[in-house]
Amino acid sequence: MGAFSDIPKIKYEGPDTDNPFAFRWYNPEEMVEGKSMKDHLRFSVVYWHTFRANGSDPFGMPTLDRPWDDGSESVENAVNRVRVAFEFMEKLDVPYYAFHDRDVAPEGQSLAESHSNLDTVVDALEEEQQRTGIKLLWGTANMFTNPRFMHGASTSCNADVFAYSAAQVKKAMEVTKRLGGENYVFWGGREGYMNLYNTDMKREIDHLGQFLNMAVDYADKIGFDGTFLIEPKPKEPTKHQYDSDAAACINFLRAYGLMDRFKLNIETNHATLAGHTMMHELDYAGAQDCLGSIDANTGDLLLGWDTDQFPTDLYLTAQSMLIILKYGGLGSGGVNFDAKVRRESIDSEDLFHAHIGGMDAFARGLKIAAAIRAEGGLGDFVKQRYSSWDSGIGAEIEAGNHDFSSLSDYMLEKGESDPNTSGRQEFLENHINRFI
Amino acid sequence: MGAFSDIPKIKYEGPDTDNPFAFRWYNPEEMVEGKSMKDHLRFSVVYWHTFRANGSDPFGMPTLDRPWDDGSESVENAVNRVRVAFEFMEKLDVPYYAFHDRDVAPEGQSLAESHSNLDTVVDALEEEQQRTGIKLLWGTANMFTNPRFMHGASTSCNADVFAYSAAQVKKAMEVTKRLGGENYVFWGGREGYMNLYNTDMKREIDHLGQFLNMAVDYADKIGFDGTFLIEPKPKEPTKHQYDSDAAACINFLRAYGLMDRFKLNIETNHATLAGHTMMHELDYAGAQDCLGSIDANTGDLLLGWDTDQFPTDLYLTAQSMLIILKYGGLGSGGVNFDAKVRRESIDSEDLFHAHIGGMDAFARGLKIAAAIRAEGGLGDFVKQRYSSWDSGIGAEIEAGNHDFSSLSDYMLEKGESDPNTSGRQEFLENHINRFI
Amino acid sequence: MGAFSDIPKIKYEGPDTDNPFAFRWYNPEEMVEGKSMKDHLRFSVVYWHTFRANGSDPFGMPTLDRPWDDGSESVENAVNRVRVAFEFMEKLDVPYYAFHDRDVAPEGQSLAESHSNLDTVVDALEEEQQRTGIKLLWGTANMFTNPRFMHGASTSCNADVFAYSAAQVKKAMEVTKRLGGENYVFWGGREGYMNLYNTDMKREIDHLGQFLNMAVDYADKIGFDGTFLIEPKPKEPTKHQYDSDAAACINFLRAYGLMDRFKLNIETNHATLAGHTMMHELDYAGAQDCLGSIDANTGDLLLGWDTDQFPTDLYLTAQSMLIILKYGGLGSGGVNFDAKVRRESIDSEDLFHAHIGGMDAFARGLKIAAAIRAEGGLGDFVKQRYSSWDSGIGAEIEAGNHDFSSLSDYMLEKGESDPNTSGRQEFLENHINRFI
Amino acid sequence: MGAFSDIPKIKYEGPDTDNPFAFRWYNPEEMVEGKSMKDHLRFSVVYWHTFRANGSDPFGMPTLDRPWDDGSESVENAVNRVRVAFEFMEKLDVPYYAFHDRDVAPEGQSLAESHSNLDTVVDALEEEQQRTGIKLLWGTANMFTNPRFMHGASTSCNADVFAYSAAQVKKAMEVTKRLGGENYVFWGGREGYMNLYNTDMKREIDHLGQFLNMAVDYADKIGFDGTFLIEPKPKEPTKHQYDSDAAACINFLRAYGLMDRFKLNIETNHATLAGHTMMHELDYAGAQDCLGSIDANTGDLLLGWDTDQFPTDLYLTAQSMLIILKYGGLGSGGVNFDAKVRRESIDSEDLFHAHIGGMDAFARGLKIAAAIRAEGGLGDFVKQRYSSWDSGIGAEIEAGNHDFSSLSDYMLEKGESDPNTSGRQEFLENHINRFI
Repeated sequence: MGAFSDIPKIKYEGPDTDNPFAFRWYNPEEMVEGKSMKDHLRFSVVYWHTFRANGSDPFGMPTLDRPWDDGSESVENAVNRVRVAFEFMEKLDVPYYAFHDRDVAPEGQSLAESHSNLDTVVDALEEEQQRTGIKLLWGTANMFTNPRFMHGASTSCNADVFAYSAAQVKKAMEVTKRLGGENYVFWGGREGYMNLYNTDMKREIDHLGQFLNMAVDYADKIGFDGTFLIEPKPKEPTKHQYDSDAAACINFLRAYGLMDRFKLNIETNHATLAGHTMMHELDYAGAQDCLGSIDANTGDLLLGWDTDQFPTDLYLTAQSMLIILKYGGLGSGGVNFDAKVRRESIDSEDLFHAHIGGMDAFARGLKIAAAIRAEGGLGDFVKQRYSSWDSGIGAEIEAGNHDFSSLSDYMLEKGESDPNTSGRQEFLENHINRFI
Repeated sequence: MGAFSDIPKIKYEGPDTDNPFAFRWYNPEEMVEGKSMKDHLRFSVVYWHTFRANGSDPFGMPTLDRPWDDGSESVENAVNRVRVAFEFMEKLDVPYYAFHDRDVAPEGQSLAESHSNLDTVVDALEEEQQRTGIKLLWGTANMFTNPRFMHGASTSCNADVFAYSAAQVKKAMEVTKRLGGENYVFWGGREGYMNLYNTDMKREIDHLGQFLNMAVDYADKIGFDGTFLIEPKPKEPTKHQYDSDAAACINFLRAYGLMDRFKLNIETNHATLAGHTMMHELDYAGAQDCLGSIDANTGDLLLGWDTDQFPTDLYLTAQSMLIILKYGGLGSGGVNFDAKVRRESIDSEDLFHAHIGGMDAFARGLKIAAAIRAEGGLGDFVKQRYSSWDSGIGAEIEAGNHDFSSLSDYMLEKGESDPNTSGRQEFLENHINRFI
Repeated sequence: MGAFSDIPKIKYEGPDTDNPFAFRWYNPEEMVEGKSMKDHLRFSVVYWHTFRANGSDPFGMPTLDRPWDDGSESVENAVNRVRVAFEFMEKLDVPYYAFHDRDVAPEGQSLAESHSNLDTVVDALEEEQQRTGIKLLWGTANMFTNPRFMHGASTSCNADVFAYSAAQVKKAMEVTKRLGGENYVFWGGREGYMNLYNTDMKREIDHLGQFLNMAVDYADKIGFDGTFLIEPKPKEPTKHQYDSDAAACINFLRAYGLMDRFKLNIETNHATLAGHTMMHELDYAGAQDCLGSIDANTGDLLLGWDTDQFPTDLYLTAQSMLIILKYGGLGSGGVNFDAKVRRESIDSEDLFHAHIGGMDAFARGLKIAAAIRAEGGLGDFVKQRYSSWDSGIGAEIEAGNHDFSSLSDYMLEKGESDPNTSGRQEFLENHINRFI
Repeated sequence: MGAFSDIPKIKYEGPDTDNPFAFRWYNPEEMVEGKSMKDHLRFSVVYWHTFRANGSDPFGMPTLDRPWDDGSESVENAVNRVRVAFEFMEKLDVPYYAFHDRDVAPEGQSLAESHSNLDTVVDALEEEQQRTGIKLLWGTANMFTNPRFMHGASTSCNADVFAYSAAQVKKAMEVTKRLGGENYVFWGGREGYMNLYNTDMKREIDHLGQFLNMAVDYADKIGFDGTFLIEPKPKEPTKHQYDSDAAACINFLRAYGLMDRFKLNIETNHATLAGHTMMHELDYAGAQDCLGSIDANTGDLLLGWDTDQFPTDLYLTAQSMLIILKYGGLGSGGVNFDAKVRRESIDSEDLFHAHIGGMDAFARGLKIAAAIRAEGGLGDFVKQRYSSWDSGIGAEIEAGNHDFSSLSDYMLEKGESDPNTSGRQEFLENHINRFI
């Protein structure tokens, strides 16, 4: 007699099943490269889209049919929603979830009341975690919805808002620790500007640096040892956000001495809004030891906003998993479905279709990536392509045995560099297609 | 009886003149904020577009009428072109120019021959500089046109190409020093990738870091003390360039220990291709003490490639000059017209129209920016907007006297942050329009 | 003691005034090309953004301070809002306004109740129109906000929604006629698709054609002789809208026999989202006698959604007015500010700054365009550029005296076409800047 | 001892082969929906990219290794190239090719000499067609590369260029007829504008309309009964092209009375540059009976220019084939690979990899689309979704039995429309993935 009593527990039935309420590819215990699919993928459901979205958009009112939700901002409704959320996640066999403080509990009339509301709901979350074994991938604080944050949170021109944000993150970190959250995320939805005429960018970014250093200090103080994650996004809701892409985030982390405590939470839709592929952002972050977790979704490259669609493109999931496997997996991170059903997908069963599709797509992506790696042709090609660096002049350069003068002598003697070989892009694209 | 004998020397005639071959706004000796316009703007003509472009595009053959150029790759033609270039710059009353090695002199059959060709042409450049007083803003090496660089220059998978690039940059730096160049620029036209399947991004970026450190060492060795500049661009010709925007460049500089020797050369069209305004890139670089010089042009925001049009939009030039004045000017940098006439602007007189328009637009931008600063309303608004940081809790935070616990106590006591004030964007846009 | 009692009536004070609550350029009775500014520009305030927007965005709650609005969906609140709206428009000295049915009056529990609510509010609108002399530029029906329209209005897969839409437009047309509305607009916010897998595009577009033909028939029946306008927009809220740009709209009008009763309402932000300049869309529509009215705003070309900012860019307004003057003005259309203050512009005085800025920008654009036309150089250049068509072979071709055979004979004889002349783009851009 | 003597004839070897020089999916005689794959797909190789591209780009010189081409513009080299081209197409087992006049033969000093050059090469093409059985899918005239066309071809401001274009198209049509070409294509690479200040858009488009009517008349005169095709592209090389997308083309065809003689040649990369999916453009054209042929390639949605990559994405090919099958196939059109190898894919074997990949991707797309259609679930879903139009009020409306008054009565009585059903987008995306 739950919210989803007509939906069976989702099980693996293999690619040939006709059952739309089954996994075709995600087989949690199946081993891939020596680890179970479940451990590779660490799927996570997001509280905000899945349990708080209502189908409204800038031109339209709510559409989604959510019979369990009375629409009120009461704590009672919030606690009831916790029960539904865990029923959903259990049916879906998903090991993790993630939330913002204000997703799970209503904001009160004062900060103290907000804290109190949150504590009540966290009791229910803790109960449900214990009952089901589902764990918290990460917690975070919503510092973008309330009008208080219109000019930013830690980057607000209003110093009181910085103070408020500090108090809110402090509480959110405590709650995350209490619930065993494995990471804590910062997405700076209002940490940017709407126009530069009225903005002191340097002062704002300095405040952001100071804020995150305070967060690190507080984590040390309370013994929270989860990973801190920054989530890049270039724009929306603001015109320009300071954490615009992986490069901007890492530059910031270096400038403010935060590289050893922070990694990135890379989101597909944010990557493409910034003009990068997801594969690029993952590889760029990974190469700098900053790959923490992913927000698994997809945008529509012909639309200029964050559509947060569920990922079903096998090229996307295979490319993502190729990079994730290359860097040894996601560590304490996971594959977090920061995605929402379309506003026309009004039934609660659509929540299942959406997640099943995303989980199957990532399971297939994992299997494709593992098969490409096992076959070895792609890796061998790349290794061979750079082989001039493994001996001779290349190896000498890498070893630090050359400068401009010695290299100039070398090349004046030789007259012209060795010929280049083909990049074979089309061959490689065909090669990848063999595994799709 | 030079190449432009029918064009008079361009002079300042004021806004009301009907003469299209006159400056309406650029009055070199006019003082603005205590410095002459000439010293503020340090205009520079680029050799590549202005003396080497021929109007070809990916779908069409050359169109431009350049009677002085015999179209050959001979050294004689190259030397003759030097004379024409300086005639043009003299007529235009422009104090600086910039070049790539391969713009001014043809590539030879071997590196040694290329060096020799370059030396011959540099003799002519030196002569003309002495004759006219026109100076070299910056030099650089073209490491993107020759097929040798198809996979990159210092980031090539082919180690020999790294060596070749080292030899080429060594020579280009020597030539820049000889000609009194005030800066040396790196634009990594092929330093990126066409696809990630065949690319080892980390190894490539490590090579780039090693290369630029070698450049610094060599500059020290020969006593070249001009500023090094990196020029960000996100894509084109490659799918993705490592120096994609100011943030990516500065992150790279920090990672490889190059922050004290490098600044950025910011280009409008590259900024917008990366999804940023020129004003953003300038402010972001300036705030990190990385604002070195600008490539003054404009793109077409509805087109996705580098159109390199001459800048005539007064909002663009006023915004640029607002930021440049804010950070105390461009130092050894300048306003370099990395811009080309449209391929339908086939006459040599169009080169004059284009540069006159760009120079006037920047002169107006400078005057507009100075007027906005003199009036003071904009600056006062911003100062007032952040005033909560100048005393009370804000000043305490900036002084380092708070942590999450103390801020939480403060806000729990207070319950809610002070109200926000209006951002007044529309008012400010109207305010700016008063000065246009 | 109205809502804006602290704001004076906005008057023309000339470019040198320091009063931000005055027009600097918009002088209603000033004559330009033989007509008053007021009659050229026919400014219109939109009810939706100006009196219904609250500052919410997809990531944030309402921010705007609107003390006169109790936030309820009561008819009483709606009537009260009418009084405030007319107070605002009177102070602003704006001659027109525009609305959707659901902006002015709340939706009821049934269609009949919605009609009844609307009638009550329309009584107040009529009173205020008579009291102030302010007129209705156009009316329209909101068929995108209610969940009923999630799959479209006349293009819904649900036939009942088509019927509902017909009933709603019927009423909106009647109300528009009653209030003396000079036009009736169709913007198909949900007339498109979210994905093609579930869509029968042909059937949907056929329904749209049938619907608009019904609208024409009903207008004839009730004697509504205002102009019908379609407003192009390519996307948002849907992934793809059928009326994507001027070309798509006119193709549709031709296909369904609607060319003689419909014109277009062109919006800047919609033009640029479709990849066109505003100047293009105006010229393209004008050349086909389809230029009806404009929605005056601007987008941010680095953002991919409809930001609906107030227009302040003088290039945009001058270009728009150049084309509008070229086609003899807007007829029964007007310059309608489909624009909203930023969500950080929270005070009601920001509504004044926004509209004053937009009105001044268009007044300046009008004066710039008229000055360019009076000076004559631009028009002469274009006429001269096409002069080969005014005599000789060009005139013969236009007269219909040639076919491929005769032209082939002509050119085989001649061997090569006459040389081309320079397009002089840079010269023309400088020329335009003389008038800014 | 041909150009490709080391490459075997490409044959179907099935999905499990390790041979990169074999088809894995394209099995020409395999029957799908009652027709052979060969007849469904009608693959075509393009002469321009495959035999004339050299790897140059706006920033770089030629890179591709084409040992058979001496690089000269001689007729002898051109004839030799014909032999190589047919050797390539034979090895690839491709039934069609396509060309521009200037691809196959060099331009002469006069129009007459150009005609003569063309005739000589066409002799060789005819011989090779007869020898191999390979046929001409379509011919066209290159009216964008020569500087003569800088301001347009039929839309040039220079009337002589119109005349030249007429003479050139006349010849190209004759040659196409002689070679049995099944279609004739117009791509208006310069039929647009670079800026509107110097452009009379209406006069230019009128000239285009007149030109295409002359083409139809001449076809009738010589008995050419192949299909005429217009190829939409929004921009590049010009800022804006008149044939910007399917809607703009069809609007133009309607306006100038050309609907019964023209269809569209839809290209993926052009569709996406215009902001549409390929699936959209195909469906939109098909619904108006304008789907003629496709240029099969892909762009990179994060790049803003025509990358013309070979299509390997199975979602793209499956979606394309779903629409093509829906409209009964391509008729006299085909799947024409308007695509080029990357400039780093320098070996001639890369031409094989590229085409094999594209052919296999379309063969898989065809099989996927056919499987989706055979299974029936998708079609049934769409039919059911619109079922309200098949009886009751929907059927009455479609039958023309209603007007606004009767529908208003119906809905006032009913009060509210029937509830909407879920659009099931996520379910459908999962459904499609079952067949990938």
